[in-house]
Amino acid sequence: MTGDTRPGLWITLEGGDGSGKTTQAVRLEEWLTGAGRTVVRTREPGGTEVGRLVRDIVLHHRGDIAPRAEALLYAADRAHHIATLVRPALERGDVVIQDRYLDSSVAYQGAGRVLDGADIRDISLWAAEGELPDLTVLLDLDPASARARLDAADKPFDRLEAEKDDFHARVRDAYLALAAAEPHRFLVIDAAGAPDDIAATVRARVAALL
Amino acid sequence: MTGDTRPGLWITLEGGDGSGKTTQAVRLEEWLTGAGRTVVRTREPGGTEVGRLVRDIVLHHRGDIAPRAEALLYAADRAHHIATLVRPALERGDVVIQDRYLDSSVAYQGAGRVLDGADIRDISLWAAEGELPDLTVLLDLDPASARARLDAADKPFDRLEAEKDDFHARVRDAYLALAAAEPHRFLVIDAAGAPDDIAATVRARVAALL
Repeated sequence: MTGDTRPGLWITLEGGDGSGKTTQAVRLEEWLTGAGRTVVRTREPGGTEVGRLVRDIVLHHRGDIAPRAEALLYAADRAHHIATLVRPALERGDVVIQDRYLDSSVAYQGAGRVLDGADIRDISLWAAEGELPDLTVLLDLDPASARARLDAADKPFDRLEAEKDDFHARVRDAYLALAAAEPHRFLVIDAAGAPDDIAATVRARVAALL
Repeated sequence: MTGDTRPGLWITLEGGDGSGKTTQAVRLEEWLTGAGRTVVRTREPGGTEVGRLVRDIVLHHRGDIAPRAEALLYAADRAHHIATLVRPALERGDVVIQDRYLDSSVAYQGAGRVLDGADIRDISLWAAEGELPDLTVLLDLDPASARARLDAADKPFDRLEAEKDDFHARVRDAYLALAAAEPHRFLVIDAAGAPDDIAATVRARVAALL
């Protein structure tokens, strides 16, 4: 099933923590609901009961989980989420607004440099039977703005933070590369802008898809 | 890591339920231990704590789990099992005797006709970083003998049993096709033979590998 054959509309939100995904998801949901659309707001990982059980294993297991095992657990969460929640909603004609999808897996895994991003994408696509969103909104935050938000949160700056800066820069680069590879699916927005302006930009693009 | 570079020896046992895998694993372990080898006897799924948590999800979740999600959960179990238990044992020089591995996944999935066996194999090999056993013992039971064992168990024969016969015949065909594709890895033994004879055949092959 592709965007051409399903009656619903599927929008995913991507970006680093603190980029404003939840705020924009809520704003978009309010606007769509006001326009009379039925909206399903969901997330990965953990959008289903099976997903929550899987996340419990990853978060609460004593001791390390092998990197490939963790990637496969998240892929299992994705497979169940798409098959039992997202696809049925799209077939009903609902709008699905989803916090994070396979682009997160590819960007974070690629930035972590443990597993190959292309492998992660292949497994995710197999899990999801090839399903891709109609629109992916990437809330892009440049390193200086990301740093300023961390500073505003009044946390001490240490070596770990510097490493985190480097990691987040790699995640951002990976996201931008994904967006460049699929310009029709992605809408890249500067997340440092005003939330009202960002919401208006998202609405304009979604309106064109409805 | 392949069989050429690791000091240990890895033997997997395959076959339908009731084909005698456990009996032969115990016999082989006794013989190897008597010969002074350190043996790790394990199984998939569920050979590790993570694996048992994964199996709990599959067995105890209320409601269906999407077929691809279930396949990925078992692949996650495999990834963790190989990375944290099997590979370290082989690197120590131990002999690993394992009840079921990726051939089970491929044969049963192929026989179930829901997912593609080649996909399952690819995902399993990614999970296991390409690791394959030095020897896979397939305890092969022809349909008449399998039927006789079921009859001996004194269970009533009904339509469901007939369907099961058909399913088991497909599993067997899938196993035999896998063995034919990798004759050097597989040792196919008629599971209808005497357990002592089977154990002797397995020992002879293992002795040649030690």
